[in-house]
Amino acid sequence: MKILAVDTSAKAASAALLEDEKLLGEFYTHSGLTHSQTLMPMVEQLLHCCRITLPEIDVMALSGGPGSFTGLRIGMAAVKGMAFAQNTPCVKVSTLEGLCYNLPEFSGLLCPVMDARCGQVYNALFRWENGVLHRLTPDRAITISDLKAELQSHSQPILLLGDGSPLCHQTMQLHQLSLAGAANRYQRASGIGLCAYRAALRGETLPPKQLQPDYLRLPQAQRELMMKKNLEFNGGKPL
Amino acid sequence: MKILAVDTSAKAASAALLEDEKLLGEFYTHSGLTHSQTLMPMVEQLLHCCRITLPEIDVMALSGGPGSFTGLRIGMAAVKGMAFAQNTPCVKVSTLEGLCYNLPEFSGLLCPVMDARCGQVYNALFRWENGVLHRLTPDRAITISDLKAELQSHSQPILLLGDGSPLCHQTMQLHQLSLAGAANRYQRASGIGLCAYRAALRGETLPPKQLQPDYLRLPQAQRELMMKKNLEFNGGKPL
Repeated sequence: MKILAVDTSAKAASAALLEDEKLLGEFYTHSGLTHSQTLMPMVEQLLHCCRITLPEIDVMALSGGPGSFTGLRIGMAAVKGMAFAQNTPCVKVSTLEGLCYNLPEFSGLLCPVMDARCGQVYNALFRWENGVLHRLTPDRAITISDLKAELQSHSQPILLLGDGSPLCHQTMQLHQLSLAGAANRYQRASGIGLCAYRAALRGETLPPKQLQPDYLRLPQAQRELMMKKNLEFNGGKPL
Repeated sequence: MKILAVDTSAKAASAALLEDEKLLGEFYTHSGLTHSQTLMPMVEQLLHCCRITLPEIDVMALSGGPGSFTGLRIGMAAVKGMAFAQNTPCVKVSTLEGLCYNLPEFSGLLCPVMDARCGQVYNALFRWENGVLHRLTPDRAITISDLKAELQSHSQPILLLGDGSPLCHQTMQLHQLSLAGAANRYQRASGIGLCAYRAALRGETLPPKQLQPDYLRLPQAQRELMMKKNLEFNGGKPL
């Protein structure tokens, strides 16, 4: 099964090609350019360097969220465009779950954290057991202090990864916490592709037109509008 | 410090750009094409997607061996060519040491093994302690049975990585052994670059004209020639 995977859920962007679980190629950039500048040239060069064409792709995979609103929409639009011509089946992967596929070698608790600002992170907890990833919580937006309280009850080694991990590592100061290395810390399309391969084997694919991003919170503009409306409705008093 | 790193020591090929320990970008392919077809287009596209030019590179890094004779020479020639114009300092990294930088999160014994054929692997043993990689043996060519005997004396978890790791995992059948995941198993330029960054801080750079590959064995043609000469010298009897 040939899989083309993309990730545009945060500041880094990447594309990967897999044949089942074998990584044929990956192009990753984290250089400050916008995904609309880098994603399609990366996909094009990756396909070219592996001598594979779009019609040969069996499954398109992408990170479906949580993540940056604009980033997720760029990835979603790019995959819809590429999958449309042949109605290629698509797999939408939780960004947090995909991150865990960076480190299947870790034998403790995996704690991916993506910076959601306002003192919050997007997070879920996972554990690898005999090559199978077990999910322990749903994807959620959680305050760093609430997450710390939850992690304190775990005595085993805990690995922080994701773009919120340096902040959480510094803020939480728990002895059982360690930080993923620089090359494995951020989401990568290879992890999204490996996760999608297993989902595709279970038949969890979607036609491209059904792809929608998974946001865990409303956009800031909508949250502010709702707050303003509530204030007006209550004569200036917050609910 | 901007580092351009390349790896062509085995079947996969890759190029990476780093700013100190931050990975700015990486392009990796493992698709069966020769490095002479893929390496320079990957370097060119990586520089382009990160909007960095060759004269901005402070250090060029490469895997110096062990590895494929032809592969190492392609990488060496490419780096010499790119570094020549500005006499850019170069860092030659042990391929086995670079592999360990794929997994700084692992807390046991790291056992990179590269397939050297004839029942042998290129190998060395390492351990991460507080973010510092400690080398426990020199790089060596060793038979799988001798390596198994050595590993049996270790009770802690041992991680096999490198292109010889599936064969060693299957042959050795030791309970403390595990196998690196598909995305972290093979040498990557990001690992070579991270290792080179620390070497460059210690001043361990070379001018490009001094770069030479490190072979642990003579090429097969030379080994066969020597054996033939020895046979002739001894009147047909092996030494």
